[in-house]
Amino acid sequence: MSSKTNISKYRIYYEDTDAGGIVYYANYLKFFERGRTEYIRDLGISQTNLREKEGIGFVVKTCEIDYKSSARLDDIIRVETEISKQTKVSIEMKQKIYRDNDNTLLCEGNFLIVCINKDMKPTKIPGIIS
Amino acid sequence: MSSKTNISKYRIYYEDTDAGGIVYYANYLKFFERGRTEYIRDLGISQTNLREKEGIGFVVKTCEIDYKSSARLDDIIRVETEISKQTKVSIEMKQKIYRDNDNTLLCEGNFLIVCINKDMKPTKIPGIIS
Amino acid sequence: MSSKTNISKYRIYYEDTDAGGIVYYANYLKFFERGRTEYIRDLGISQTNLREKEGIGFVVKTCEIDYKSSARLDDIIRVETEISKQTKVSIEMKQKIYRDNDNTLLCEGNFLIVCINKDMKPTKIPGIIS
Amino acid sequence: MSSKTNISKYRIYYEDTDAGGIVYYANYLKFFERGRTEYIRDLGISQTNLREKEGIGFVVKTCEIDYKSSARLDDIIRVETEISKQTKVSIEMKQKIYRDNDNTLLCEGNFLIVCINKDMKPTKIPGIIS
Repeated sequence: MSSKTNISKYRIYYEDTDAGGIVYYANYLKFFERGRTEYIRDLGISQTNLREKEGIGFVVKTCEIDYKSSARLDDIIRVETEISKQTKVSIEMKQKIYRDNDNTLLCEGNFLIVCINKDMKPTKIPGIIS
Repeated sequence: MSSKTNISKYRIYYEDTDAGGIVYYANYLKFFERGRTEYIRDLGISQTNLREKEGIGFVVKTCEIDYKSSARLDDIIRVETEISKQTKVSIEMKQKIYRDNDNTLLCEGNFLIVCINKDMKPTKIPGIIS
Repeated sequence: MSSKTNISKYRIYYEDTDAGGIVYYANYLKFFERGRTEYIRDLGISQTNLREKEGIGFVVKTCEIDYKSSARLDDIIRVETEISKQTKVSIEMKQKIYRDNDNTLLCEGNFLIVCINKDMKPTKIPGIIS
Repeated sequence: MSSKTNISKYRIYYEDTDAGGIVYYANYLKFFERGRTEYIRDLGISQTNLREKEGIGFVVKTCEIDYKSSARLDDIIRVETEISKQTKVSIEMKQKIYRDNDNTLLCEGNFLIVCINKDMKPTKIPGIIS
């Protein structure tokens, strides 16, 4: 199991916000997913290749989100991603999103990711993630 | 505490799907939010009025999602929403999304909703929700 | 060429709005696309079937949007869709979006839709649209 | 009138794609808007400040999009933005989006942007953009 932490940063644009003046609550899941994707990319894994060549993909089975504070237009957010647990077919990822300029914790998420084959059945995670 | 269940139905369009051929995982939170909004609207409450006239709004504090199966383009989904617990300043809502034509359970969500004032601080839920 | 007009209506939710307090400009293209989809569905055509069984799909080649006014949270909008021109491989659709309760014109769009095959090349539109 | 060109680059994530396997057509308007925002930021202008302190904002009045080719998951796209015309209250921006690794032109957009005040009426563009 990798003990590394991936850090990726994103700007907040109008597309991310809602009429409450803050980032729309579902959009944090987009940022969490960007962070997980970059984590996997940093391991040298192309999810596009995995899917097209081996019919293997990763899906979110469960998630728990705790919203602490809100990001606003023009903020830069920092997504921190790490693997907290791994089995043969699944990965648990622990993620945090901060407002980067003042280090405020905006939300925390725990995601159970399952590796699936073409028939949407759980399958062994490729050896490269270990 | 209301014991009613709100049922609302939505069509899946291209905007909701991703390159995996299924509904993008974050978009179920949009459907859950539509369901909660319709639940509150059915109680005769206008969230727009609450916000503009009394400075009161509802925000999601935590959520837990369990993804069971996937919706696809052209599916009609059914969102079932009920209140499972209520305090002076918060509501717990339990929601399920089904593919409507074959009744397949697609995902379940538990949401802790907090009533906040203009300063983003917890405040008493208007009496009408009871 | 059909001379019918399809009318479909949608509620505005938080997901559709931005920090300006109005519907985010790109999201009108989602509503326009819902309207075109319902237009085609009303002709008895399943786009899912067309794509999966015949490898045929419709893509937007060009669009022109004129924004007149803005929709807000809780508004119901009415999308009116009609075909303004048709060739063997393309359809021009003229669409208008109104706020339904006061009939305010919110935006107008002209879309050139091309029928494509699996190789993304223009192909003859199935006879059923005529 | 500035003759500079702003170049900004973005990764394509699952959130951007649809069941057709390519970027959803409305989402290019998000990337165009990111490019225009970065153009304005590079001029030293904070749109958040303008809105909050002077009640001034920019809205899209019209847009024309020509879709040439499609971006896919994991692509990096390059958004090129320049001002093609300017009046006292409006700016015309010409934008192109390329797949960055092979320089394929994906789509072109022309946007008429109007500067508005709190009452949503056209107002003079702050002197700094000139």
